[in-house]
Amino acid sequence: MASPCQQNSGTRPSIFCKLWGKVVQLSLKLKKLGEEDPRRIVHSFKVGLAITLVSLFYYFKPLYDGFGVAAMWAVLTVVVIFEFSVGATLGKGFNRVLATSVAGALGVGTHCIATLSGESREPLLLALFVFIIAAVVTFLRFFPEMKARYDYGLMIFILTFSLVSVSAYRDDEVIDLALTRLNAIMIGTFTTVVICVLIRPVWIGVEFHKLIAGNLEKLGNFLDGFADEYFLVSEKVCNSKDKSFLEGYKSVLTSKSNEETMAHLARWEPGHGRFRLRHPWTQYLKVGNLARQCAYKIETLNSYLRSEIQTPQEDRIKINEPCKIISSECGKAIKKLASTIRKMEKTSDLAEPHIANSKAAAENLKTILKAGPWKDSNPLEIMPAATVASLLLEVISCTEKVVEAVHELESLAHFKISEQRLTPENQPESLAENQKEINATHDHLVITMDG
Amino acid sequence: MASPCQQNSGTRPSIFCKLWGKVVQLSLKLKKLGEEDPRRIVHSFKVGLAITLVSLFYYFKPLYDGFGVAAMWAVLTVVVIFEFSVGATLGKGFNRVLATSVAGALGVGTHCIATLSGESREPLLLALFVFIIAAVVTFLRFFPEMKARYDYGLMIFILTFSLVSVSAYRDDEVIDLALTRLNAIMIGTFTTVVICVLIRPVWIGVEFHKLIAGNLEKLGNFLDGFADEYFLVSEKVCNSKDKSFLEGYKSVLTSKSNEETMAHLARWEPGHGRFRLRHPWTQYLKVGNLARQCAYKIETLNSYLRSEIQTPQEDRIKINEPCKIISSECGKAIKKLASTIRKMEKTSDLAEPHIANSKAAAENLKTILKAGPWKDSNPLEIMPAATVASLLLEVISCTEKVVEAVHELESLAHFKISEQRLTPENQPESLAENQKEINATHDHLVITMDG
Repeated sequence: MASPCQQNSGTRPSIFCKLWGKVVQLSLKLKKLGEEDPRRIVHSFKVGLAITLVSLFYYFKPLYDGFGVAAMWAVLTVVVIFEFSVGATLGKGFNRVLATSVAGALGVGTHCIATLSGESREPLLLALFVFIIAAVVTFLRFFPEMKARYDYGLMIFILTFSLVSVSAYRDDEVIDLALTRLNAIMIGTFTTVVICVLIRPVWIGVEFHKLIAGNLEKLGNFLDGFADEYFLVSEKVCNSKDKSFLEGYKSVLTSKSNEETMAHLARWEPGHGRFRLRHPWTQYLKVGNLARQCAYKIETLNSYLRSEIQTPQEDRIKINEPCKIISSECGKAIKKLASTIRKMEKTSDLAEPHIANSKAAAENLKTILKAGPWKDSNPLEIMPAATVASLLLEVISCTEKVVEAVHELESLAHFKISEQRLTPENQPESLAENQKEINATHDHLVITMDG
Repeated sequence: MASPCQQNSGTRPSIFCKLWGKVVQLSLKLKKLGEEDPRRIVHSFKVGLAITLVSLFYYFKPLYDGFGVAAMWAVLTVVVIFEFSVGATLGKGFNRVLATSVAGALGVGTHCIATLSGESREPLLLALFVFIIAAVVTFLRFFPEMKARYDYGLMIFILTFSLVSVSAYRDDEVIDLALTRLNAIMIGTFTTVVICVLIRPVWIGVEFHKLIAGNLEKLGNFLDGFADEYFLVSEKVCNSKDKSFLEGYKSVLTSKSNEETMAHLARWEPGHGRFRLRHPWTQYLKVGNLARQCAYKIETLNSYLRSEIQTPQEDRIKINEPCKIISSECGKAIKKLASTIRKMEKTSDLAEPHIANSKAAAENLKTILKAGPWKDSNPLEIMPAATVASLLLEVISCTEKVVEAVHELESLAHFKISEQRLTPENQPESLAENQKEINATHDHLVITMDG
């Protein structure tokens, strides 16, 4: 599309040109937003479709005659409960229908009691009831358990109760009114849920599942690459490589609240694909929290790549091999766990040989350290490398905890038994062979140090 | 209150007794919830009051004649926009009124265009407009900038536009309809805002301010007590002490999303107390993020209190003094910053002597380390203590960054100049005296090691 500003030969851009620039900028942003996740575009169309469908109540006379102005509640319901994910939509829909039914019934009951008390006292009694119910239910919203799952329902409860009991004062056909409104809300909810679930649904459970697997993947990538980075930090070969794997883990540090919200919403979803109704979402949270514990250690490790005091290369090299093995084997173990979760296959025990390798390397590292590799070095300069080694040892126990949690998840979520797990390319390197390599390195190091 | 179950002489508790038990349990929980923060009770009463006030529209005939069923929108508005804090309420109120006005006008315009196209095409055109607007605005809600501040407004925009344009098809007095509804919404918003602001308001800005100060306080408490804990971990004296200060910092690790939400909401608040309209909330976020960086380091430090390998006490003692000074001086510096923020007084430079002390101690630690204090010890057992020392050095630079950020905050937020800052008890211990003490310790240590 040719910009109209290109035809403008003046030296100063006109207001029209500036506006055009803004429009182009906005469209580019919108395009990027859609390209990042095309489901956003689909969702927008779904919302448009649902609202258009329920507004048919107005266009078709027979439908309108049945509902009248109450048809508005169907539109209102669609707008407020249609969320991006199925879980969020179902949660809001359930809350809305349940709260409207209960509060509507209570509102009608209140109206009846108030009417019995005589005309002059009726408004007073109604006002009192509304005040009490509104205050009590508002207070209930502070309950953490309530807030997590039923906050929206409690709000709708106050809303419906107030509207039904108060408007009953002016409209004697209160039961009719409440029922028509409830019907409209149910039709709105039904339309929303059907469109949300049937047209390319976004399952928050699947997203949550992917998030946890992705977080583990990021930690694995860091650990797999860290030692190479740390022990070769002065060599130029490394500088040309893509370093994004060193930053990926940072999102894990702050994803706790996101994970908790997703777990809450996922509970609203029925069984879908390989996820059953009572999929163990809390176990995913546990895996997520343990992954975060690892991420905190990794954050500290990462700071030693740019530490003020640096251990000289010749001193680092002395613990190079076992550290590299610990780091990369822990990384591989965590990546195996990520793939276990992603594929939903019982393969978490494939991580165990990697853990065993890293533990063997840890023993090796301890032996090297006991031998006193840095006797003639400046102890101050040694400190960063010693810290890195110490942190790597901590990372092993962190990783083990994650393995355990994924192992538990695997059986709680009934992951299927992998068919390909015994083919050669999926087998981890033989433990014995690796141990041989470690021992060779160790011998070499001991010789170096002694010589 | 006597439990009815105490009168029950049967051996098995009746259903009534069980129910009574649940009721008692719930009341206790409710009581605790109210005691934890009595403002929750006040808020509940405020909501009850606001809803009761706007429902007067129904009880008084002259008022009801003016609004009719549109009075319902006033009640609805109060229920959905009344939030715990002023910021959240103002944000929602502003969004609601603005979105209703703009969308209402657009809805009326759409109705006019559709009417011009002839009776048969009118519903088709209306449906098309509704579909397009709903889809486009839903897509806009994905914009991060929009989502943060105007998400609610965009939803209300879709709602109002759909309702006005569609219901106009059945009701020709569409402008009247839209205006009455807008009036009701404005009255609802006004009532809510007045009650929210005038009756014991909860300013989210103040809460945010306290949260950041509190987080710094927690970090300070940890650092102030950590070294004592680490270097005396085997002595029994320590075990009887309250250890809660070692856990407090954990909430800082995961408070990022909470801080961001509070900063967003605080921006909606007008000037109040010592906070101006454009208080630098983003600077608070910066302080919060830097505090979190410290908290990550602290998390790692904390894990060394229960590390698998422990450095023997006689080896730890060699770096005991400088480490204790670094830790407690950094802790004191951070606590000074917390008090700077809490009191809103220009006192962040009071933290600088503490930083200087900890830097001096760091130099001392380096000197000790250079001398090779652990030449005859098991290097593996030394590693944890060396790591703690190394992490403490990292903590200094972390703390310095926080000092800088608070210093910036102090001038951006125009904190007042403290009156008491020059009285003796507020003065930090003299730098020179402290340095003398450090040197004495150092000499003592060097002697110990040489001997």
